[in-house]
Amino acid sequence: MNYKKLELEDINYIQSIIKDNERILMGENINEEYSHDELSDTISYPDLVVKVKSPEEVSSILKYAYENTIPVTPRGSGTGLVGASVAIEHGIMLDTSLMNHFLELDEDNLTITVEPGVLLMELAAYVEERGLFYPPDPGEKSATIGGNISTNAGGMRAVKYGVTRDYVRGLEVVLPNGKIVEFGGKVVKNSTGYAMKDLMVGSEGTLGIITKATLKILPLPKKAISLLIPFPSLEQAIGTVPLIIKSKAIPTAIEFMQREVIMDAEKYLGKKFPDNSADAYLLLKFDGNSTEEIEKDYENVAQICIEQGAIDILVSDTTEREDSIWKARGAFLEAIKGSTSFMDEVDVVVPRSSVNEMVEYIHGLYKEVNIRIKSFGHAGDGNLHAYILKDELSEEEWEEKVKAAMDKIYGKARELSGQVSGEHGIGYAKKSYLMKALDPATVEIMRGIKLAFDPKNILNPHKVCQL
Amino acid sequence: MNYKKLELEDINYIQSIIKDNERILMGENINEEYSHDELSDTISYPDLVVKVKSPEEVSSILKYAYENTIPVTPRGSGTGLVGASVAIEHGIMLDTSLMNHFLELDEDNLTITVEPGVLLMELAAYVEERGLFYPPDPGEKSATIGGNISTNAGGMRAVKYGVTRDYVRGLEVVLPNGKIVEFGGKVVKNSTGYAMKDLMVGSEGTLGIITKATLKILPLPKKAISLLIPFPSLEQAIGTVPLIIKSKAIPTAIEFMQREVIMDAEKYLGKKFPDNSADAYLLLKFDGNSTEEIEKDYENVAQICIEQGAIDILVSDTTEREDSIWKARGAFLEAIKGSTSFMDEVDVVVPRSSVNEMVEYIHGLYKEVNIRIKSFGHAGDGNLHAYILKDELSEEEWEEKVKAAMDKIYGKARELSGQVSGEHGIGYAKKSYLMKALDPATVEIMRGIKLAFDPKNILNPHKVCQL
Repeated sequence: MNYKKLELEDINYIQSIIKDNERILMGENINEEYSHDELSDTISYPDLVVKVKSPEEVSSILKYAYENTIPVTPRGSGTGLVGASVAIEHGIMLDTSLMNHFLELDEDNLTITVEPGVLLMELAAYVEERGLFYPPDPGEKSATIGGNISTNAGGMRAVKYGVTRDYVRGLEVVLPNGKIVEFGGKVVKNSTGYAMKDLMVGSEGTLGIITKATLKILPLPKKAISLLIPFPSLEQAIGTVPLIIKSKAIPTAIEFMQREVIMDAEKYLGKKFPDNSADAYLLLKFDGNSTEEIEKDYENVAQICIEQGAIDILVSDTTEREDSIWKARGAFLEAIKGSTSFMDEVDVVVPRSSVNEMVEYIHGLYKEVNIRIKSFGHAGDGNLHAYILKDELSEEEWEEKVKAAMDKIYGKARELSGQVSGEHGIGYAKKSYLMKALDPATVEIMRGIKLAFDPKNILNPHKVCQL
Repeated sequence: MNYKKLELEDINYIQSIIKDNERILMGENINEEYSHDELSDTISYPDLVVKVKSPEEVSSILKYAYENTIPVTPRGSGTGLVGASVAIEHGIMLDTSLMNHFLELDEDNLTITVEPGVLLMELAAYVEERGLFYPPDPGEKSATIGGNISTNAGGMRAVKYGVTRDYVRGLEVVLPNGKIVEFGGKVVKNSTGYAMKDLMVGSEGTLGIITKATLKILPLPKKAISLLIPFPSLEQAIGTVPLIIKSKAIPTAIEFMQREVIMDAEKYLGKKFPDNSADAYLLLKFDGNSTEEIEKDYENVAQICIEQGAIDILVSDTTEREDSIWKARGAFLEAIKGSTSFMDEVDVVVPRSSVNEMVEYIHGLYKEVNIRIKSFGHAGDGNLHAYILKDELSEEEWEEKVKAAMDKIYGKARELSGQVSGEHGIGYAKKSYLMKALDPATVEIMRGIKLAFDPKNILNPHKVCQL
């Protein structure tokens, strides 16, 4: 694709739209942050960053970019892990972080309408103050909602409540040609033409730019209790998960973790975790409207864990304990990152019944490839995060070993009927693994879909399925 | 589009694939049923019906049809209401009703994998016998699962459990060119490229033919109780719904109905409904794992109803009573159909808070257009079914009046930010209303998506967004 290089006339035009030079960044005013995301080593600067404030601004800029074949990359908080928000072809970056307003709370329809730059933690706090609940709970609380929708972010409550997709009712989207359209709405059911709203969810900013989102919310469960359950071995811990799923109690979350990672988190946060004596842990959460209701559920599950060899059942029923446990859990990624010189990650998802085999396999790679790998993840939904650590390796050794480890992990995931990404997306960094995982016929259709939205391919080029 | 007309050589080729002449119907052997669906007056015969038995047969036929530009229309039980399974361009019809096998029940992952021709009632019975639960509950129990997926069927439990989309984990699909691909799988989370599985759901047989579906199932709730609540007026009944939604008890179903329709059902079934003395009713269902758990929920809701003027609260807590009420509810469509010479329907969905206004508006049309209209529907999710009755009208009067009524109803739905279809789809009959409801830019993208899957446009032509 031959993109037009930004020239003075283009910048003048954009200034005429925005009319606020503080929201237009160029050259040295573009902070280094804008050249990368949270993890991937995909690095590329945009020529221009525009901090947009309205759908109309997004529309005017896209219309101009489309007519002039200038690449445009949307960006929220830049907390992605796969390079989806990096401006590979330079051009214009649209930073949505100033579009951070709550537009409407509709208690009759139990929906909230927000701009895309609202942060996950802001949204959670806003609804919880009002006795309401936005269930998706990805670890990175400073991600924007626009970013969460673009990756179909999952998070820790997926076992019981599902993922971001399940809470997106309607989207306002600016198409690559600048047209503003609505997909879905406040309606609960919809069989009105192809599932455009669902196609936008998880499309990583390649099909259109989300400028408004109407989200489903629920009444806030009145009570939550967590169980931290030490096991003598990871195998026993994870082997217990299918039995929990089969029992009729549905926990909100079923996470697994190991001592090593807990100790990283203790160091990173400067705070003790309630227990670090065992090799492996399950962390479970139950919610409901009364303590009795929850107790009935968790007592049954605790019994199952004991029968499977759990060393103890640590019940956390105060807000303080809850916070300390889940804060530690939320800090795992940063904590592991802090424990090494550089790292890369996999976010594979496998059928729940294969979690044990997948985790054991990843463990074995430590010896086979001779590289440190730490993992934790959502045992309840089969989504594992494994971090491959560079430590003291030379650049050359690292390249070779990380590739070897990745190839093996993704290969094993395919063998277990798993998928490349459970919640972090494909972006730029995981494209080659997507290509290996999908049927070429599927890739061809995905590219056709991209063209249907963006015939000139100006929006977030080289991402997801696009070479 | 210039399609090839079926010739002897084509029939010979198909016979060579199927090798079982009893599964190939031609000419007078094509039953009249194959020329239409359950309701719409879209009528057209296929040239050939093939009762397929495997993905490989579907693949071979599609490959041949694609190479020779022969139109292909998939059909399940033909219980659709909008003409989606009618062979407008004649050609080949693929009847999937013999692909009705249960392929795998995976209790570890709580999924069931079935062929597309399994009927909804067969699936429900199969899992319930094993203590499991497939929540989607559309009224038409003899629809196939393939059909339910193709329309994203909703049904009566959507208030609490969501719609078909929420229970489809993975699909095996034969693309129009005959390639067999898999979208999704047994995984619970997925952010691996564009949402192909979700795009297939609700695509009404225009993008590919579903040959296998992996569905999410749940543990079966141990207990269900229904409340039948008579109100002095429909307005009071429906006005109560937002208050129920806001209370923290989430019913499985919130249906509204009127005396007139109940009496049709009594006549149709030859059985008395528990009560027919009031003008309007809400029918609520609650489920859970114990009577106490459910009682707490429904007592709160019953109180709300009484405060809003409910005449009585009829509690149905035996299996027999449950069956009789819900059987009557399930027979409404057939009962109304039996009460008139011919009818057409709308399946609009509006935000829950606008149900009252929408229903009142439809009632007013009786006088304005001077045509009988009966309605009932899912008050809990905003999805209304209104049936416009021909009765003794001449063909000419009918055409004129039904168009006037439809235009007004869909116009009102748009005004209330509603959508054309909540669960029945667009098919052939509702295309003109879809075109009015969608932004032309969205229609253009939908057509681009269709082309990405089916560049020669052989699969189920003239449906959904396609002229």
